[in-house]
Amino acid sequence: MQFVSEDVASRVVSMAEAIGVIERMFREYGRDEAEVFPVAQGHGPDAGTSFSIKSGLIRTSRTVGLKVGSYWPQNRTHGLPAHASTTLLLDPDTGYPQALVAASHLTCLRTAASDAVAVRHLSRQDSRTLALFGAGHQAWFELLAVREVRPIETVLVVNRSPKAGEDFARRIQAELGLEARFADSREAVQAADIIVTVTAAREALFEASLVRPGTHVSAMGADAPGKQELDPALVARAALFADVVRQSLGIGEYEAAHKAGLVDAQNVTAIGAVLNGAPGRTSPQQITVYDSSGMALQDMAICSLALAKAHEAGLVRTV
Amino acid sequence: MQFVSEDVASRVVSMAEAIGVIERMFREYGRDEAEVFPVAQGHGPDAGTSFSIKSGLIRTSRTVGLKVGSYWPQNRTHGLPAHASTTLLLDPDTGYPQALVAASHLTCLRTAASDAVAVRHLSRQDSRTLALFGAGHQAWFELLAVREVRPIETVLVVNRSPKAGEDFARRIQAELGLEARFADSREAVQAADIIVTVTAAREALFEASLVRPGTHVSAMGADAPGKQELDPALVARAALFADVVRQSLGIGEYEAAHKAGLVDAQNVTAIGAVLNGAPGRTSPQQITVYDSSGMALQDMAICSLALAKAHEAGLVRTV
Repeated sequence: MQFVSEDVASRVVSMAEAIGVIERMFREYGRDEAEVFPVAQGHGPDAGTSFSIKSGLIRTSRTVGLKVGSYWPQNRTHGLPAHASTTLLLDPDTGYPQALVAASHLTCLRTAASDAVAVRHLSRQDSRTLALFGAGHQAWFELLAVREVRPIETVLVVNRSPKAGEDFARRIQAELGLEARFADSREAVQAADIIVTVTAAREALFEASLVRPGTHVSAMGADAPGKQELDPALVARAALFADVVRQSLGIGEYEAAHKAGLVDAQNVTAIGAVLNGAPGRTSPQQITVYDSSGMALQDMAICSLALAKAHEAGLVRTV
Repeated sequence: MQFVSEDVASRVVSMAEAIGVIERMFREYGRDEAEVFPVAQGHGPDAGTSFSIKSGLIRTSRTVGLKVGSYWPQNRTHGLPAHASTTLLLDPDTGYPQALVAASHLTCLRTAASDAVAVRHLSRQDSRTLALFGAGHQAWFELLAVREVRPIETVLVVNRSPKAGEDFARRIQAELGLEARFADSREAVQAADIIVTVTAAREALFEASLVRPGTHVSAMGADAPGKQELDPALVARAALFADVVRQSLGIGEYEAAHKAGLVDAQNVTAIGAVLNGAPGRTSPQQITVYDSSGMALQDMAICSLALAKAHEAGLVRTV
């Protein structure tokens, strides 16, 4: 039994490597070489706590396992993160536990990497201005991911708390040397080549009419019934993509538009299909939307890579 | 993060302690102080492999976590066990992973302990003759469990392979000093005070008419659709008990009788209800049947105990 600590897992996988392994996984998923199993949900002893258990199999690499992701909101009152993730990889030859990987950092990384895959294949190659809705922990990962695949020069940060938004913009300038400023949603959307939303919103963050032709939008936040970041009118007129089509219609960003009868499964293309040759962006004027609701295969792929990289570095503990 | 190895987990919990902790858990479950979450199922890359993920919460002891149980039948061709179990306990205060417990031995122990709880509360106190159907790994645990709670003097082993049945009977004589012999099913059932079935049978192992008044039957094998050890005619005339009533009717021993319209939920009493005062055996002539299909709370309870005992013994590794 091998163990990769959170500290080690946080250091061994670069953003570029994460994007590579997540892109390969989506391509395999698009060829039916990978499988997602039903999700189980549970909770802890105190009100408001919850956990989910997601499992999956990538046949080509023989990667199989599960991730438990917990959400204990009271942690915040003790200065601890509310979310935690742990992945258990199974030995594909015996079914025995192979490795436990502490995966809170890797979960942020794989989520952002999925965004980068979409941005690489759906946004205009000359995209230089990014509007970022949200200034939390995950927003930083999204920025790093988008910047890896497009020549971003300017970041406009939109956030409910101006203070946090301004701090975030200053951090971008200081650490990444990009032009960055806090902006209102109208200004940011009207200037953006790429819009990334990373919020827990339950209603549209901006009006559809503000979005310029040719914009790409990655909606990262909605992953449960009732959560929503985009105007259904935008969803109705854009070319739609998703990591898992049925999840996007059921619990993701397309839920509201789907319930309103504006979109259906045939209107949404899986990113895995695009990676295998289905049309992505078909003109520079088109508005593309990618919805990420997340799946276990991302966790399996990145944790398997982290285990291999930790091995190379001699940082795996055997217990 | 704490780790309890299979070797340590196999040594720190006695059968008497296992029975104690499982009985307490069933009592709490019977009072709605514990909760079972939906099960998720998946599989590995090769045909015939499967795994299940079961999770649960015991509110009184604030024990929460999940168990992954894998079944890789090809392991047997390499001389390895086909089944493996691993439990991940979560810290109830933060949701963070608390301990990984290698739980293959503990799974055998908790299953047998559930049988012992049923035997203690449902069989006649003067039960001395045990008919044991099956001579596999789990059958040995069942024998140890029943012997813990009733004054067993004679064991009649019934098994498809006479060689394995005879070897098993010799082992019982040698290691436990009990009278034991290989027997045919008719002889064993007609002599038994207690019948325990521990097989992968898909049809009745013996005729209902052979069972003497006053016998207790524990059916341990059926835990999936189509599996069956008992004659539906026996199920129809006995007082019925189960660990989880709806599982027994759906995928357990009462499935066949339920489908035939012979029994329904109101005919089956949860063992947890018996522990909280519902009628169990009501006469020395009654035939009682207990069906075990297993649940995560048994795993949570026994792994939590194993972790505590391993701590006491200084055998927990922290990684």
